[in-house]
Amino acid sequence: MGSEPVTGLRLPRAQRRQQILAAAAEAFAEAGFRGTSLADVAARVGVSQPGLLHHYPTKEALILAVLAERDEDDRRHLDEVFRGTAMNLVDWLTTLCTINSERPELVRLFAVAAAESLHPAHPAHTYFQERYERLRGSVAARVVIEQDEGRLPGALDPMATATELLALMDGLQMQWLVQPGIDMCAIYRNALERLATHAGTSAA
Amino acid sequence: MGSEPVTGLRLPRAQRRQQILAAAAEAFAEAGFRGTSLADVAARVGVSQPGLLHHYPTKEALILAVLAERDEDDRRHLDEVFRGTAMNLVDWLTTLCTINSERPELVRLFAVAAAESLHPAHPAHTYFQERYERLRGSVAARVVIEQDEGRLPGALDPMATATELLALMDGLQMQWLVQPGIDMCAIYRNALERLATHAGTSAA
Repeated sequence: MGSEPVTGLRLPRAQRRQQILAAAAEAFAEAGFRGTSLADVAARVGVSQPGLLHHYPTKEALILAVLAERDEDDRRHLDEVFRGTAMNLVDWLTTLCTINSERPELVRLFAVAAAESLHPAHPAHTYFQERYERLRGSVAARVVIEQDEGRLPGALDPMATATELLALMDGLQMQWLVQPGIDMCAIYRNALERLATHAGTSAA
Repeated sequence: MGSEPVTGLRLPRAQRRQQILAAAAEAFAEAGFRGTSLADVAARVGVSQPGLLHHYPTKEALILAVLAERDEDDRRHLDEVFRGTAMNLVDWLTTLCTINSERPELVRLFAVAAAESLHPAHPAHTYFQERYERLRGSVAARVVIEQDEGRLPGALDPMATATELLALMDGLQMQWLVQPGIDMCAIYRNALERLATHAGTSAA
């Protein structure tokens, strides 16, 4: 599926790394971190295992690189969508939902990795802790701005609201992965608009 | 952790099965389905592997039994809490949240198993599909009743609302498992009350 093995070719370093990350993302999404071996990933790319280890010395390094690259991708994507426009929270989050609705494999990778990483010994444990904290911080900061501009009720607790909005997206994605007929983005947008127009009890 | 190995004793069948399920739940929550072997579970219980296979012939049978038993447990628990009282949706779901907030290991087991089971080859794939469908159906039916009684806005789409409420609980539990300081039940109750008091745009 996806990346075609290009065996024996000497690809430029950056291109080879991209190829490895794409193959690893597929493998981790399908079989989880524990169920994937470096040998599986090497076989998908069509390189030898030492060839793979040259770029990513451990499976831990590989999954962290996959996750970090996909986060970076998201940031670029959202920057492009909102370039030069005032990005409001409802549009930002529903756009992210729409982007995700077009890439179930990536959403599955994050769902599986996030759940597996609940174990403190998982290599991405700290990564997910920091990712949730960072995302909550970004969304909460945006809530405060929109409260100042009068677009969100002042009574909302910014951090609790951020926690709620991220949780709803995570949970909707899970059900949508299990049952792709669910229109998760319509449900999400509706919840966001309810929040924005609600007279204003606090979210915490 | 938890169940103490009682080696060599001949326990009654039902008691031995309880002991096995408790040990298996711990093991699956810690290491996932793929990361757990029947030998691990047998060692935790203090029985031989053939002794374990006598009760649960495969790892697939074991995880399905663990999940089904815990669902059954939930039903009993909720029946007790609401015995003889009219159970309204907000109270029902916040009570479930409170119960879950007291058993992080079980919540983790479900989070890990649900994410792992996204792969169609996972033994619990169908179980989770059916579980989500069943839960959505129960919550949607309850939404309809409360709309009839005037306690929820008539404009809410029952199925979309059920999807949203289950998603929010799932997502909040994920963040709470990563960051136990989060008061997930306060956030959940608040979202439920906002839904109940909102003037009534539809959730889909």
